[in-house]
Amino acid sequence: MKLAEIGARGDGGVDRPALSATEIEARALMVEWAREIGLSPFTDPVANLFLRYEGRDRTLPPIMVGSHIDSQPTGGRFDGVFGVLGALEAVEAMIINGEQPLRSIDIVAWTNEEGSRFSPGMSGSNLFTRARPLDEVMAQRDANGIVLREAARDVLSHDRDVPVKDFGRPVAAFIEAHIEQGPLLEKAGVPVGIVTGMQGTRRYRVKVKGEAAHAGTTIRSERRDAMMAAVRMISAIEAATMDPADVKLTVGLFQVTPNAPSVVPSEVLFSVDLRHPDNAVVDRVDEAIRRIVQDERGPCEAELNQIQYAPSLEFPQKIRDIIAAAADRCSIPTMDIYSVAGHDARQLHYVCPTGMIFVPCRAGISHNPEEWAEKDDLVACTKVLSETLAILANSRSL
Amino acid sequence: MKLAEIGARGDGGVDRPALSATEIEARALMVEWAREIGLSPFTDPVANLFLRYEGRDRTLPPIMVGSHIDSQPTGGRFDGVFGVLGALEAVEAMIINGEQPLRSIDIVAWTNEEGSRFSPGMSGSNLFTRARPLDEVMAQRDANGIVLREAARDVLSHDRDVPVKDFGRPVAAFIEAHIEQGPLLEKAGVPVGIVTGMQGTRRYRVKVKGEAAHAGTTIRSERRDAMMAAVRMISAIEAATMDPADVKLTVGLFQVTPNAPSVVPSEVLFSVDLRHPDNAVVDRVDEAIRRIVQDERGPCEAELNQIQYAPSLEFPQKIRDIIAAAADRCSIPTMDIYSVAGHDARQLHYVCPTGMIFVPCRAGISHNPEEWAEKDDLVACTKVLSETLAILANSRSL
Repeated sequence: MKLAEIGARGDGGVDRPALSATEIEARALMVEWAREIGLSPFTDPVANLFLRYEGRDRTLPPIMVGSHIDSQPTGGRFDGVFGVLGALEAVEAMIINGEQPLRSIDIVAWTNEEGSRFSPGMSGSNLFTRARPLDEVMAQRDANGIVLREAARDVLSHDRDVPVKDFGRPVAAFIEAHIEQGPLLEKAGVPVGIVTGMQGTRRYRVKVKGEAAHAGTTIRSERRDAMMAAVRMISAIEAATMDPADVKLTVGLFQVTPNAPSVVPSEVLFSVDLRHPDNAVVDRVDEAIRRIVQDERGPCEAELNQIQYAPSLEFPQKIRDIIAAAADRCSIPTMDIYSVAGHDARQLHYVCPTGMIFVPCRAGISHNPEEWAEKDDLVACTKVLSETLAILANSRSL
Repeated sequence: MKLAEIGARGDGGVDRPALSATEIEARALMVEWAREIGLSPFTDPVANLFLRYEGRDRTLPPIMVGSHIDSQPTGGRFDGVFGVLGALEAVEAMIINGEQPLRSIDIVAWTNEEGSRFSPGMSGSNLFTRARPLDEVMAQRDANGIVLREAARDVLSHDRDVPVKDFGRPVAAFIEAHIEQGPLLEKAGVPVGIVTGMQGTRRYRVKVKGEAAHAGTTIRSERRDAMMAAVRMISAIEAATMDPADVKLTVGLFQVTPNAPSVVPSEVLFSVDLRHPDNAVVDRVDEAIRRIVQDERGPCEAELNQIQYAPSLEFPQKIRDIIAAAADRCSIPTMDIYSVAGHDARQLHYVCPTGMIFVPCRAGISHNPEEWAEKDDLVACTKVLSETLAILANSRSL
């Protein structure tokens, strides 16, 4: 809870942008805590923060565990933070019990997961796994024009004796604990969810270009009305995504130029966010969307850009079994659950065996100062996390 | 052209807000010109400016002729101004020819026609004809919070010996000359249009209220998606306005809350601007729009407000015949034309016989620094205006 005071909002929420002054403060606190219990902090060029619990065999790749500490502007106290502090508690429990595992354990706080300061997010895990080019991520700018590279440099300059290592060291396995951001665990009354996979996402921007015209003098057949073309597209896209019923289609952003009541719009820019667990469904809808944008543009020009593509994925059964075994040892009930939101674990999944553990959050509310998780559930989840790390870090082969 | 220098933009256009310092300057110039040729200026509480050419029989209501001198922020040199200066030239021609008519002729510049400083516009003609309550119009504020009453007071305080009369004197007839703001006269190569009527307008604001939700975690059946409800409404409204084909439907304003790509919109506010010459069509579509907003709201709340209603009108045949006869006398060709934009003549139409004369403008462009009318056309139109005034002002019964 002490971390929640850094960047605290008056309403109980948190506003802690990536690579900001509040994050620098939170980072210093974590480094201090880590050193107090004997962990070695280190970092990398994008300011991912690692806290290493040294294992008995330093030649083996470490187990990695963590999440992120940046938040949405109207964020809560648990999203991301629990995955880092839960890992710290889990490792502290091992230290207190005098258990030094075979492999080292690296607790990690990934940089700019939320993407609310620098968009898109997951910058830290993307660079660590080399999923995106260094220069591209480092050149991202925030709303004030500040470049990510400079913001990261600023954070690093505030570190006290924290070595900087390069990206892409081998990792034996990655575990991320996180609040569910959905209502299922709470409804089922189960404190721990074993995440089976993540739903696929495609995100687009559609730009429709028409021509401004006077609402009173230009007859309809002579108009190139960007609004009506955009409305036809969204209408048709919605109709094309009705089957199956669980396709998630969101048009959240809609910008009109000049946006005046008596002027036929010359331009509309809108977003399309498409999510579904089955890649085949996402791909089929993708085709439909591309066709619709061209079919419905009428006398306007239309341009579709896919700005993000993340296929559905399934976490390896081996890791899910280990989490289940760990929960069994603690006599804590679990249930399988699907992740509908994105997490850093997506990136790690492509470079090492990865798993996620969910903890219930009240009414499924997240990205909101109302975000809340019960202490008992957090403790149960941390126990399972600790036991999972013990199993993983003591396995010679993974 | 000297008037175009007051409030001139660097690009050849004009930025002369209603009741502004630039309008005070333009007004002083007009009063000076009027006095030079023997006209008597007077004004009223909203600073409408009248320049009277005294007739032989002062007991008869005057003929009124004019338009406005305020402009849009990116306005041109002709919109409004031609109707005032053309009237001044027309009356000057009568004076030079030594023709004193039976009735007085009042040249008028109506206050705040454009509505770009104080919205809605046509403040001067609305108050003169008592179409809107005095206190309501006087209480309108501009973007800086300045009240119209104070702005008018400021303008009046700069007048030199210009008497202030009350609103609502009887008027025998009103004539307004104006650029067409459409392409038809230019296309036909005809210098003078006799305006037959004005198309009806209804303007609405529709507010759709749903609930914000996470694009990745909230299934569609549980959403209250304001975007999709708004799109359904606009789609259905467009479909309902396809017959007849000349209904002008414009959705120019569309505001989304929170307008973020990964958040289901909680609120959408959009405008509907509906215009057609036939009131029966406008009324029929009005019914359809009201029904559609409720039918298509789905799980959202929806609220429709009609913010403006102006029925279609037809100018009296008698006045159109007089303009035609005047053009005949000058051997200047004319054609009948419909006004698709609003003018002060709409307000006067309800209190006295009213007519309008249009002059071609290049490519129909208006409300734009590119606005242009040819000198020959302006001269032809002024001749017809002068002859029309002579006929009207010498008629004992109208």
